[in-house]
Amino acid sequence: MTLVPSPRALVPFVSVADMMRLVHAIGVEPMLTGIAGTIEEDFRRWEGFERTPRVASHSDVGVIELMPTSDGELYGFKYVNGHPKNTREGLQTVTAFGLLANVSNGYPVLLSEMTLLTALRTGATSAVAAKYLAPKGARTMAMIGNGAQSEFQALAFRAVLGIDTLRLYDIDPAATQKCRANLVEQGFHVTACDTPEAAIEGAEIITTCTADKQYATILTDNMVGAGVHLNAIGGDCPGKTELHRDILLRSDIFVEHPEQTRVEGEIQQLDADHPVTELWQVITGAAPGRREAAQITLFDGVGFAIEDFSALRYVHKKSGELGMRQDLDLLADPDDPRDLYGMLMRSR
Amino acid sequence: MTLVPSPRALVPFVSVADMMRLVHAIGVEPMLTGIAGTIEEDFRRWEGFERTPRVASHSDVGVIELMPTSDGELYGFKYVNGHPKNTREGLQTVTAFGLLANVSNGYPVLLSEMTLLTALRTGATSAVAAKYLAPKGARTMAMIGNGAQSEFQALAFRAVLGIDTLRLYDIDPAATQKCRANLVEQGFHVTACDTPEAAIEGAEIITTCTADKQYATILTDNMVGAGVHLNAIGGDCPGKTELHRDILLRSDIFVEHPEQTRVEGEIQQLDADHPVTELWQVITGAAPGRREAAQITLFDGVGFAIEDFSALRYVHKKSGELGMRQDLDLLADPDDPRDLYGMLMRSR
Repeated sequence: MTLVPSPRALVPFVSVADMMRLVHAIGVEPMLTGIAGTIEEDFRRWEGFERTPRVASHSDVGVIELMPTSDGELYGFKYVNGHPKNTREGLQTVTAFGLLANVSNGYPVLLSEMTLLTALRTGATSAVAAKYLAPKGARTMAMIGNGAQSEFQALAFRAVLGIDTLRLYDIDPAATQKCRANLVEQGFHVTACDTPEAAIEGAEIITTCTADKQYATILTDNMVGAGVHLNAIGGDCPGKTELHRDILLRSDIFVEHPEQTRVEGEIQQLDADHPVTELWQVITGAAPGRREAAQITLFDGVGFAIEDFSALRYVHKKSGELGMRQDLDLLADPDDPRDLYGMLMRSR
Repeated sequence: MTLVPSPRALVPFVSVADMMRLVHAIGVEPMLTGIAGTIEEDFRRWEGFERTPRVASHSDVGVIELMPTSDGELYGFKYVNGHPKNTREGLQTVTAFGLLANVSNGYPVLLSEMTLLTALRTGATSAVAAKYLAPKGARTMAMIGNGAQSEFQALAFRAVLGIDTLRLYDIDPAATQKCRANLVEQGFHVTACDTPEAAIEGAEIITTCTADKQYATILTDNMVGAGVHLNAIGGDCPGKTELHRDILLRSDIFVEHPEQTRVEGEIQQLDADHPVTELWQVITGAAPGRREAAQITLFDGVGFAIEDFSALRYVHKKSGELGMRQDLDLLADPDDPRDLYGMLMRSR
C-alpha cells in the first residue's frame, strides 16, 4: 500500500540526529549566542506572551511537565521530565521535546527533540541573566555540579560574557573529570577542585547545578563573598534547593516568572512576598541589574516556557534554512476537511 | 555521517498512515468497540487518575489545548486544536497528536497521531455513555451536524448499541450528502432530512455535533420529547453550546468531569451548582443511569483527558502487536547520561 500524505499533513521534525547536525553546522557557541539573542528578544516583549505556570505531574521519583506559551502568532510547548534517579539507571535525568504551532489555525509547524535544545537554552538563559548581573569583566566561574548541563553553561558563559577560566566541583569526581576533559578540549582553563570551598576561590560567578531532589545546601552563607554573581539553576522544583537561606537574604534576587519561581526556585525558602526582580524588566531597562561592585546578585533560574519558545523559534528558522529536518506524517489532511472518514476509507 | 541512535533513544511513532493501516487491520467497528472497552475500564478506576482540567490557549479564531493525565504508571497527554473556521480554508477543525510516557522514568513510550484517534475515541465515549443512558432497544439515531465526527459516532453507536437507522440533518446539504454516502456504503438505513424537526422524528437518540463557536440553538425545547437520549457533543468550549437552556432543565444530565464541563459544556448555561451525574459513577454502579422510560437523559460530552489516555493505551498495545508503527529518534541517549555534551561532540 502506498499512501502519499499531502504537504499539509506533514510537520517538519528535528530529530536528535538532526539537532546534532544543526549544532555542528552552526557551531556550539554561535548557536548559544543565537539562542541567547532570541531569548533576549522575546524577554523584551514579555508582556505580549501568555504566561501559564507549567503543568506538572509529580510522582515519588520525578516529575513530568508541560510548558505552554504563546505570543499570539505562534504557540509553543515543551514536554519535559525530571527524574534525578535516572542517572543511576543509565538514563537522562531530563528528556524533552517540543512543538510550535500556528495560533491562527492550530496546525503544528515544528516538532523537535529538546533534550539537547533544553541544555542549550538553559545555558543561554543563564548567560543572558549574567550579562546583566555579573561583575564587569568577569573571567572566572566556579561550577558546583558537573553533570549533563555543566558544559553548556560554560560554553554559553564564554560565548556571551567571555568567561575562560573554570573551577569545577562535583560530589562525584568522575563527573568532574568528564566535564574537565570536555572543556579543556574546548580551550578553557580548568581546575578540578576537591571541595566546594576550593572551587569558589577567586570566582566572580558561581554556578550551582546539582540534580538531587532534596533541600540541599551546596553553598553555605560564609562561602559567598561580596560582589559575586550566583547562577543557581539546580533548585527547580518543590523540595529541591541548593543554597542556604541566609545567602538568599543577603542577595538581590532575579527570577524569570515570580509565580513559578516562588514554588520551584531557591526562593521557596523565603516568604511569599520577599522582593524579587523580574529578569525581563532588567533587560528592558525598567528595573536595575547590578548596581554596585559589592552587591551579591542571584539568578534563581528554574526555566520558563518562553525560553523554550525562543529556542524552538531559533531552531525552526535555522533548521529550515539549513535543511536539517524531516517531514513527519503527523496530521490527517483529507481533501474535504469534513470527510475524515472518507479519507480513512479511501486509504484501504 | 551516520548516526545510529540507541534503542532507548527511539520512541514508537504511529503516523497518520500507520493509524489508517491499524484501523483497517482491526476493522473500524471492532476498533471502536475496543476503544470503548478501554474507556470503560479506565472510567471504572477514575479515582486513581490525575484529573487536571485541560490547559487552553484561546485566540479570536480558536483554541489550542493540552490535556494531560496519569494513572500513576503511565502518563499521557494530547495536543489538540479547535478552529471552526478552518473548514472554510480547507483545513481540519480539529487536529491532534498525543503521547504516553512511563511515570517511573519520564521516557515516552508512544507518540501518535490523534486526529483520527480523537474522532474514534469521541465516538466510542458517546457510545459508552449511551450504553448506560439510552432507551433499551434503541435502533434509530438523529444526527444534527454531519461533519468530520458524524460517521464515527454512527459506527460507534452501531458497534456498541446496535443502532442501524440514521436521520441526518446539517445546515450544509453537501455535508449531509457526504455523510449519507459514507454510511449507506456501511449498510446503515439513512434518511437525509431538510430540517432538524424532520431529523428527530422517531429517533430514540439525538446526537448534536455542530462546529460553530457560538451560543447556538440546534434544538429548541419543544423538539425534545419524553424518553429520548441526547448525545450533545458539539458544545465543548466556553461560548459554544447547541441546546436551548430549557431542554437542560428537563433533562437528567451526565458529564465526564464536572469541573471541566461546567466551563465548556452545555451546562455553562446553568447555575454552577445545578445537579449533574458523573458518567464514571454510572459505569461503576455508584449512581443510576436511565431510571425510567419517560426520562430525558443528556450526555453533555466535552471530551476528557482520560478518554485520550484510554485510546492511546489501546493503540500502544495494538500497534505493537501488529507492528504498525515506526521508530522515531526523539530522545538523546548518551552512553554516560551525564555526558550529553560528549555525545554531541562525538557525533561530529
